[in-house]
Amino acid sequence: MSLVITPIALRASVSAESDILTLLLDALDQAGEAPTDGDVIVVTSKVIAKAEGRVVPFDGTDHAKLALIESESRRILRRRGTLRITETHHGFVNANAGVDLSNTEPGTAVLLPVDPDRSARRLRAGLRVRRDVDVGVVITDTFGRAWRHGVTDVAIGAAGLRTVLDLRGTVDATGRTLEATEVAIADEIAGAANLVLGKAAGTPFALLRGLDPTYFGDGSVTRDIIRPVNGDLFR
Amino acid sequence: MSLVITPIALRASVSAESDILTLLLDALDQAGEAPTDGDVIVVTSKVIAKAEGRVVPFDGTDHAKLALIESESRRILRRRGTLRITETHHGFVNANAGVDLSNTEPGTAVLLPVDPDRSARRLRAGLRVRRDVDVGVVITDTFGRAWRHGVTDVAIGAAGLRTVLDLRGTVDATGRTLEATEVAIADEIAGAANLVLGKAAGTPFALLRGLDPTYFGDGSVTRDIIRPVNGDLFR
Repeated sequence: MSLVITPIALRASVSAESDILTLLLDALDQAGEAPTDGDVIVVTSKVIAKAEGRVVPFDGTDHAKLALIESESRRILRRRGTLRITETHHGFVNANAGVDLSNTEPGTAVLLPVDPDRSARRLRAGLRVRRDVDVGVVITDTFGRAWRHGVTDVAIGAAGLRTVLDLRGTVDATGRTLEATEVAIADEIAGAANLVLGKAAGTPFALLRGLDPTYFGDGSVTRDIIRPVNGDLFR
Repeated sequence: MSLVITPIALRASVSAESDILTLLLDALDQAGEAPTDGDVIVVTSKVIAKAEGRVVPFDGTDHAKLALIESESRRILRRRGTLRITETHHGFVNANAGVDLSNTEPGTAVLLPVDPDRSARRLRAGLRVRRDVDVGVVITDTFGRAWRHGVTDVAIGAAGLRTVLDLRGTVDATGRTLEATEVAIADEIAGAANLVLGKAAGTPFALLRGLDPTYFGDGSVTRDIIRPVNGDLFR
């Protein structure tokens, strides 16, 4: 069965007065798409953050930028110029604590949502109430990686989805135990959605249809994907 | 426009006598899929490696495993038990130099292709000759990540595709220069394909249709995605 990924444009602007669920449903209606059971809705973090009031004043100076990064960080892992590799209060390791200074209103910066898993659960619950559908929700942001050039979108929040899944079972066809079989499907979903969203300004939503039914369940990015510091060979 | 990702099963077994292009074309025919200009074909590394004769004897001992990992590595970055975080001769940073001890013939291990970009170029050229189509090719393998639990599929070779792409331009809507806008679309394509391949044993191919035309061009994983050691804050 094919997986179909459809970008969903948002015409309205987003502010702290916005109800993200209503914006999503209106955008789906305008796109002529009706969410159905087993779909996954991907939402980029910035619209969530704006709707949750995570917009702060920013005067454009390096000093203000670094102060914002510090305030969003639990720990600074690396420094280069005004670039910081940070461990955010969520536990994410990313550049500049996800403080977004681009495509924001002049004089402002956008911070990451405080609890993206909760934001995803709220959207999923709202979709069930308003449309009576059982869908997964993934909230995404753009992260760099160690060792590989270029950024990719990853999951920072999820609901209704098993974010990390053992796809192949613990024993292979020849009876040997497999290594490294836990697949971070929430991150693969985030990157897949970015393939249709990246080019499209003002397109913060994607609808994924055709994912394997076993992908759905109770998952969390914070609980399942963030590595405990003591389990991490690179921190 | 939607992106459609279709798994393509392979019924034949793969050996050093196999012609991977013929296997791919037969599999596409059996799936009732005809590649067309602007498609991307994703191929998992193991079938490429087997067809290129990268299968070696393996007696199942830790000693033999570690010897294989050493021989495939340019450098060992971390050690834990029999796990090695390696820099392969290609320059990839991964676990155990990509030496595959699972789902292999008893008594054997499968190594990564020697030059996956070249393998991808050869497949792309063959598709042009045999089917007169201009498609991108991505060869994938499963890598772990620093800081995030779970593995994802990434690109280890590519042809006909701009592996790293500036999706948003260098200046944002408010005139400010964007940071970190180079998106590793080849890795997002690899992860997207794994969403339909992961569950399906014996399904080493995926067909992606509907990618933005600007994604296509002359790209290389080795040249564009592998970070030079001196540009890497985590090595």
